[in-house]
Amino acid sequence: MCELLGMSANVPTDICFSFSGLMQRGGRTGPHRDGWGITFYEGKGFRTFKDPNPSYNSKIAELVQKYPIKSCSVISHIRQANRGGVKLENTHPFTRELWGRFWTFAHNGQLTDYQKLDTGRFRPVGETDSELAFCWLLKQMGQRFPEPPTDMAALFRFIAECCETLKGLGVYNMLLSDSEYLMTFCTNNLHWITRRAPFGQASLIDEDVTVNFQEETTPNDVVTVIATQPLTDNEQWQKMQPGESVLFYLGEKVDL
Amino acid sequence: MCELLGMSANVPTDICFSFSGLMQRGGRTGPHRDGWGITFYEGKGFRTFKDPNPSYNSKIAELVQKYPIKSCSVISHIRQANRGGVKLENTHPFTRELWGRFWTFAHNGQLTDYQKLDTGRFRPVGETDSELAFCWLLKQMGQRFPEPPTDMAALFRFIAECCETLKGLGVYNMLLSDSEYLMTFCTNNLHWITRRAPFGQASLIDEDVTVNFQEETTPNDVVTVIATQPLTDNEQWQKMQPGESVLFYLGEKVDL
Repeated sequence: MCELLGMSANVPTDICFSFSGLMQRGGRTGPHRDGWGITFYEGKGFRTFKDPNPSYNSKIAELVQKYPIKSCSVISHIRQANRGGVKLENTHPFTRELWGRFWTFAHNGQLTDYQKLDTGRFRPVGETDSELAFCWLLKQMGQRFPEPPTDMAALFRFIAECCETLKGLGVYNMLLSDSEYLMTFCTNNLHWITRRAPFGQASLIDEDVTVNFQEETTPNDVVTVIATQPLTDNEQWQKMQPGESVLFYLGEKVDL
Repeated sequence: MCELLGMSANVPTDICFSFSGLMQRGGRTGPHRDGWGITFYEGKGFRTFKDPNPSYNSKIAELVQKYPIKSCSVISHIRQANRGGVKLENTHPFTRELWGRFWTFAHNGQLTDYQKLDTGRFRPVGETDSELAFCWLLKQMGQRFPEPPTDMAALFRFIAECCETLKGLGVYNMLLSDSEYLMTFCTNNLHWITRRAPFGQASLIDEDVTVNFQEETTPNDVVTVIATQPLTDNEQWQKMQPGESVLFYLGEKVDL
């Protein structure tokens, strides 16, 4: 199993606090020693930091924790390898272009019989079930919508159907973003929380850190954090149900 | 105009020395204030660091200079914007997948009438002539070789022909890599040097730094560096001719 972390916000927000908690699970408080990665969108562009080494003692993870990169959409992943060796090309998140946008994807779980999925022109580079599932998903999306879709609700309903198919192959918890939207799909473990004014204090489960969000935010900020397991112990996280899909647009939950 | 830097080597080698020289041109000894980027291959995977801010005072550039990431194939670029605003999505290098490999591309120069190039399924995300040219090139490659090519010389001869077409639209100096090969194309400014035993000393033009490669290498290392302008003042760099294409495979020049 791996751990997922996502953020969707209406103003560029740094994820240092949540990332600090997650990184401790990469070999210290958790067993996920086989690499980590994080993708930040900035406008239509993105930056990805990743490492096939454990996150808790990675120089690059240290930079990411210290350097407050602000973004409205972030996807992060720490890995405990099951399918595919411990290599950079097998390290999540994965990003590919479709319709002139960059789509970023991370998966937690394990699929069987995934080799039969036809990925068309989106060929995997590494050997993971996750990258292959992502390539298949993009092929489905491009096939159903040969031109960039304007009805985004229809697009995300279609993606949810595809996720249902992938869930049929095993455990499929997913985060997917195109920079503005962040889509989640749950098979067994995924939690989310939306923080908005009045902001309070939060304390990390994995590290002895407390943050007062009131000092870090303005009254109009809306920030949603999605994680495999709750990262704080004094807030109420929403537990997602098996087969449930939740879509966020710049911090706010959107009906599908 | 921008500056390009590439490295092709037969063993994973760090590029800290050459990158230090290049970064000074990003707003200090040169006028290239509009961002910089660097892509390192590691196996079939890659890591990219980029910033739309000037390189000479970038926190991430500092990390890359200090942290010796070793790679057999590196492409770097510092930018002085002409086409497309100063944004992350307009910052080189650009990377896309074709045939299950990641192709990385950087361009120096300026094209006119480039909007008419048909990029097919490879849609640009940003607004630069460079990304559009890259998308067009990938479309040509995919069209000529629908399946992954086995005759790599034929592939790179075809790419050289495409580069000739792009040179017809303006100034087109290019670096392109698929992790093992590094292809160069020159319109006006591109220089390269291959370093091998016996290694000597080299001193940077842009900074008061000298490195003794003998202390950094083993006798079998072969390391080629390609740059817009020579980075050292005590070595003999090869100046490329207009319309010339040079291909490197793991450090060694390969006949096209």
